[in-house]
Amino acid sequence: MSKKKICVVVGSRANYSSIKSAMRAIKEHPALELQLIVTASAVLDRYGSVVNLIEKDGFTPHARVTMLIEGETPATMAKSTGLGLIELPTLFEQLAPDVVLTVGDRFETMATTLAAAYMNIPVAHTMGGEVSGTIDESIRHAVTKFAHIHFPASPGARDRIVKLGELPQHVHLVGCPRIDLVAEILQNCSTGISEQLFDIGVGERFPVDEPFVLISQHPVTTEYGSGEAQITMTLEAVREQGLAAIVLWPNADAGSDDISRGIRKWRERKLDDRMHFFKNLPIDIYVNLMRATACLIGNSSSGIREGAYIGTPVVNIGTRQNMRDRGENVIEVPYDKKQISDAIARQVKHGHYAMNPLYGDGSAGRKIADVLATEEVDVQKCITY
Amino acid sequence: MSKKKICVVVGSRANYSSIKSAMRAIKEHPALELQLIVTASAVLDRYGSVVNLIEKDGFTPHARVTMLIEGETPATMAKSTGLGLIELPTLFEQLAPDVVLTVGDRFETMATTLAAAYMNIPVAHTMGGEVSGTIDESIRHAVTKFAHIHFPASPGARDRIVKLGELPQHVHLVGCPRIDLVAEILQNCSTGISEQLFDIGVGERFPVDEPFVLISQHPVTTEYGSGEAQITMTLEAVREQGLAAIVLWPNADAGSDDISRGIRKWRERKLDDRMHFFKNLPIDIYVNLMRATACLIGNSSSGIREGAYIGTPVVNIGTRQNMRDRGENVIEVPYDKKQISDAIARQVKHGHYAMNPLYGDGSAGRKIADVLATEEVDVQKCITY
Amino acid sequence: MSKKKICVVVGSRANYSSIKSAMRAIKEHPALELQLIVTASAVLDRYGSVVNLIEKDGFTPHARVTMLIEGETPATMAKSTGLGLIELPTLFEQLAPDVVLTVGDRFETMATTLAAAYMNIPVAHTMGGEVSGTIDESIRHAVTKFAHIHFPASPGARDRIVKLGELPQHVHLVGCPRIDLVAEILQNCSTGISEQLFDIGVGERFPVDEPFVLISQHPVTTEYGSGEAQITMTLEAVREQGLAAIVLWPNADAGSDDISRGIRKWRERKLDDRMHFFKNLPIDIYVNLMRATACLIGNSSSGIREGAYIGTPVVNIGTRQNMRDRGENVIEVPYDKKQISDAIARQVKHGHYAMNPLYGDGSAGRKIADVLATEEVDVQKCITY
Amino acid sequence: MSKKKICVVVGSRANYSSIKSAMRAIKEHPALELQLIVTASAVLDRYGSVVNLIEKDGFTPHARVTMLIEGETPATMAKSTGLGLIELPTLFEQLAPDVVLTVGDRFETMATTLAAAYMNIPVAHTMGGEVSGTIDESIRHAVTKFAHIHFPASPGARDRIVKLGELPQHVHLVGCPRIDLVAEILQNCSTGISEQLFDIGVGERFPVDEPFVLISQHPVTTEYGSGEAQITMTLEAVREQGLAAIVLWPNADAGSDDISRGIRKWRERKLDDRMHFFKNLPIDIYVNLMRATACLIGNSSSGIREGAYIGTPVVNIGTRQNMRDRGENVIEVPYDKKQISDAIARQVKHGHYAMNPLYGDGSAGRKIADVLATEEVDVQKCITY
Repeated sequence: MSKKKICVVVGSRANYSSIKSAMRAIKEHPALELQLIVTASAVLDRYGSVVNLIEKDGFTPHARVTMLIEGETPATMAKSTGLGLIELPTLFEQLAPDVVLTVGDRFETMATTLAAAYMNIPVAHTMGGEVSGTIDESIRHAVTKFAHIHFPASPGARDRIVKLGELPQHVHLVGCPRIDLVAEILQNCSTGISEQLFDIGVGERFPVDEPFVLISQHPVTTEYGSGEAQITMTLEAVREQGLAAIVLWPNADAGSDDISRGIRKWRERKLDDRMHFFKNLPIDIYVNLMRATACLIGNSSSGIREGAYIGTPVVNIGTRQNMRDRGENVIEVPYDKKQISDAIARQVKHGHYAMNPLYGDGSAGRKIADVLATEEVDVQKCITY
Repeated sequence: MSKKKICVVVGSRANYSSIKSAMRAIKEHPALELQLIVTASAVLDRYGSVVNLIEKDGFTPHARVTMLIEGETPATMAKSTGLGLIELPTLFEQLAPDVVLTVGDRFETMATTLAAAYMNIPVAHTMGGEVSGTIDESIRHAVTKFAHIHFPASPGARDRIVKLGELPQHVHLVGCPRIDLVAEILQNCSTGISEQLFDIGVGERFPVDEPFVLISQHPVTTEYGSGEAQITMTLEAVREQGLAAIVLWPNADAGSDDISRGIRKWRERKLDDRMHFFKNLPIDIYVNLMRATACLIGNSSSGIREGAYIGTPVVNIGTRQNMRDRGENVIEVPYDKKQISDAIARQVKHGHYAMNPLYGDGSAGRKIADVLATEEVDVQKCITY
Repeated sequence: MSKKKICVVVGSRANYSSIKSAMRAIKEHPALELQLIVTASAVLDRYGSVVNLIEKDGFTPHARVTMLIEGETPATMAKSTGLGLIELPTLFEQLAPDVVLTVGDRFETMATTLAAAYMNIPVAHTMGGEVSGTIDESIRHAVTKFAHIHFPASPGARDRIVKLGELPQHVHLVGCPRIDLVAEILQNCSTGISEQLFDIGVGERFPVDEPFVLISQHPVTTEYGSGEAQITMTLEAVREQGLAAIVLWPNADAGSDDISRGIRKWRERKLDDRMHFFKNLPIDIYVNLMRATACLIGNSSSGIREGAYIGTPVVNIGTRQNMRDRGENVIEVPYDKKQISDAIARQVKHGHYAMNPLYGDGSAGRKIADVLATEEVDVQKCITY
Repeated sequence: MSKKKICVVVGSRANYSSIKSAMRAIKEHPALELQLIVTASAVLDRYGSVVNLIEKDGFTPHARVTMLIEGETPATMAKSTGLGLIELPTLFEQLAPDVVLTVGDRFETMATTLAAAYMNIPVAHTMGGEVSGTIDESIRHAVTKFAHIHFPASPGARDRIVKLGELPQHVHLVGCPRIDLVAEILQNCSTGISEQLFDIGVGERFPVDEPFVLISQHPVTTEYGSGEAQITMTLEAVREQGLAAIVLWPNADAGSDDISRGIRKWRERKLDDRMHFFKNLPIDIYVNLMRATACLIGNSSSGIREGAYIGTPVVNIGTRQNMRDRGENVIEVPYDKKQISDAIARQVKHGHYAMNPLYGDGSAGRKIADVLATEEVDVQKCITY
């Protein structure tokens, strides 16, 4: 019997982490064949050539598609989606997949979904049904309305997908595949971070046994133009608390130039004497940092998702993760230096939280592969009400 | 005070009929300025150069954008959407609209919506919340998930939009703007059709005072490849009933070549002795035909929508209008020659139905303009549950 | 030793005929591997699905790329080229060819050439150095300025390529590969045409043993909008001479809609009582028609090229083949009904011409493969003066 | 009488400097109307938002078109050209220019040229006929084969254009419009550079009255991947000579990431104690630096062109300016540290050269406008031999 062909389109480092365990499970499943297209920031040097990492992990891309139009403005995000929509159909015709598996809520997810759905290829979607800020909120739910098989990560997300009029029998609560990686890393790695960490990245070193915070702040597309002020406020709050910090550069997205400018100016003003800066941290180091940090600050989804499983204290700033289901490890604050600063102090004092399986227990990838191997869908969708 | 700029993107003849009364109302509204982009099949000779008609109606396009990639396959529909997504952002930057108003559920609607939403321009959407077959079903609901202001045409559609998690205060039941045109035409025109009708189109003439049927059948994108058999069955059923017929060529969509081939072969087999064939019938003639016909046959939405207002007897075939709210004037049949033939006989016998305002009472355009003039929205959307 | 990979991009029926014998020779050459991409009108139903013919001939396309944007205006020709330029690089990265072989002077030729040259892949070009009307004139010479290996079809063309500043050692006079097919067909086929011819195409039949003319007239891109008048004049001249005619529909190009409209109106005016109309005639039938016809009329390059080898009397109208090297079998006339009519009369009276190897002797394909197997080029070009 | 509309497409900072004086002359000419589209790197923050500078200079862009696809590989250069070809036709239809004026030999030049030529809009081209390395060599001559009016900058270039088969009456030797700006700056500015220079850029300061070199080295597209080693060698040679240096970041082009990486690593190795680094230097400062520097090193065309007029001693490295007509102020060296180092020493010793009008005398812009105002061309081109 011929294997069912599952095509995954990976568009960024975060994308890859969110689907890697499912890719592995698909590749190893006797009834499935994995097809892979790598695109968007995942093929670019500037974002650390994730495609090379993917190949090192044993996956073979059918094609590498550059599709990011320079500018990182809302307009180029739309045009990049268009570029993806132009190229993916030709590649899908080459591959003739039985299912296209797409991840989350990025603009390349939209391109993948539209191309497949228009071509009458069933679409499977991970991480639908969640609630957040930015245009991702709309992309995610729109993708749900095109998708045929749903793999939500949390119970709240599952309920929302059903409310959106999707057939309950095609909505499978599997948890987030990123947690699979986290679980694996926590099993394999020693605790604590080492001095060698500072050999990569740029900026100052600080004693690794001292408490430090982790800053990961991304642009909010609907607040385009405010990024520089936002990151500066965070850096000031951390400085006020007198804590050492590890600072991550933002994702490629409309507005990331603003955040980057804020960080660069901070460094030029020489206010970074206890800060170290990283682009594209390997996930195992990142997970270890989340376990070791006194507090994760910013608006990264990892604080809420992986943070729940790891027990990381988190100060989540602003609207970007608005209404995402969260555990007790997260304190919410607005863009207000005083409130950010106070919340950091509280989290540092509280310390580590207990493990919470809100976003999965480490078996998402395997469950996804099992569903894909057996589920039959009607390519013609119909809302349930 | 500067006027609020409303940009309308028109992509097909059907699109134009569906938004024309709103365009006129926007143009005439003291607080609004109309901006216009014409694209997709509306700029093509092959589909009757709708753009020329638009100009004759007194509207001035800011740009004409060719975006249809030849092939009319599912893959080219995806690529055409991509092309639209590449060009529209540049034009939206030129125009800087306050709201983009988009129509219905076609692939150019998706391109317009994505471009505007990604660029943080509020999106207003007409004819959302309806239920139908084909990929349009998914496009329509996905557009709803991006749109900020909703103008559903029927009560059922309004309810569905709210269930999809949209804010009720931004959902305005206005009726369908096409009904505005229908109401106007019915007021202005004499009843009955004249011999001159046959001067356009191709094929045979028949006595205009005899009962005749109207055939309008379009491809179903999820049944790609079946179009030729489907139209042939319809033509056979009509021939069986011994009725004269007016046959319309299909819309530009994946699969329309199949339908066209079926019609061409029918003509080559010389089975069309009482049939006349039209491309791109002017809407006033079409409305008059709907009033005069003994029965409208096929899968056009006009039977269900305008048909309710006009009272046209309709035989609706197959899945394309699946679950669209409908009045008592419609009989549903599957692709089955016997059932199609019987349903035609019943409708011819029944004759005209009473008027039903299910899809509007003729004031949709004016209501849309009034809402657009005053409604304020938050560009950051959030699902209500 | 690994084989040298030669990638051919085929974009139309004419394209395919112009390169088929070289493709076969490459496929059979022990030192070469053939890679194939099929695109533009060659993948479309509307132009007879040349890709299916290509597969039937034993070639396997790596990808099929729809790239024609509807409209057939000069603007869509530019945009279609752009679409090709967006998709071809991804495919060239998949294939990693050692040489890209491109044909002639169409807009997809330009896309292929730019994609390869920008990517530092050596470009080989057939049919460069010729002189003609339309934008093809500029495309052809521009492609020469990007190409590394040149395969001109005639001595005049070879000389022109050298004058354009190309290195003489990379300019190989091989003849036109179309003549290879013609030679083969003339060897294999019986003379004369049969009644069965009329089973395909549309229109009237006429006795096959009577003299008939062959009409093949294409739009001139720089005379956009004049096509309808041009073809009508030709049809009138033929009617005036009282000759039966076989009429071919025009190529896909800016302006072909104009020519098509002219033909359709002629048919609607019922002036076609001795004319039969064809789309996409198989080349073997076409060659036989060229051998059998009393005169080929229009502006097709086949009259000048294949016509020289076959000895077909030709009346070439207008500027489209302007200055192409030609044999004594061609009479030149402007768009003037009287002159066209007189020239037809002269050619019909003259009858068949002697064979002239001006555009090749039937061995072009084999010579091309031999050069490609051994020629080394410097990817950095430099003009010779 | 209506003015003749001249549309200029500007795609980079260098592009703008090369056409600015002509744009001004067109704008001021009574018979001409200037139309402007800004695209490629000229609309990007990352390259200094040249579009803002253009607006400050009093020009109003009709549209801003992002068209650069991230990656800066040969493949993305091709795709970016494709993107330009998709968008420009829509804009040209909006503007309906009488002539499109395009500059030089970049990939956006190719897109502009193809879009205009395909659309039957006469193309005027500056800086054709020159000889250089990289793919620019092919682009430049290919553009010449599409262009209708030619504005070469040097006598050698004029002769080459005529040899390429262009009509001599449409080839106008006007000089390079960049020299117009240089002449103006030299008239207006004081000699010497000031301490304030170091307030922009990053890196070390050094005494401004000391001899310093200027380094401007760009990627060679046909040597993709070698950029890092090439710039490192140059930096080492300068260091060996013990000279202070001003270093410019490379242009956006395939391979510029390599050069940038080389510079960044040099700085991380702390070898830059007497070096200062600039992105996007205003042209007046740059011209002043060319007048003040002891030697310009690298492969920038400015050394050869503006250098001739200013009298700057130049060490030109490698193949990028291969065979460009040059004055006695230039010493050629290969990628060889010893030879680079020796040539620097010779130039520093020689000092300033006498002015040479090889690339123009400062009146190019005005001459271009005068020709455009009166020249009539046949849109159908034909090679002269």
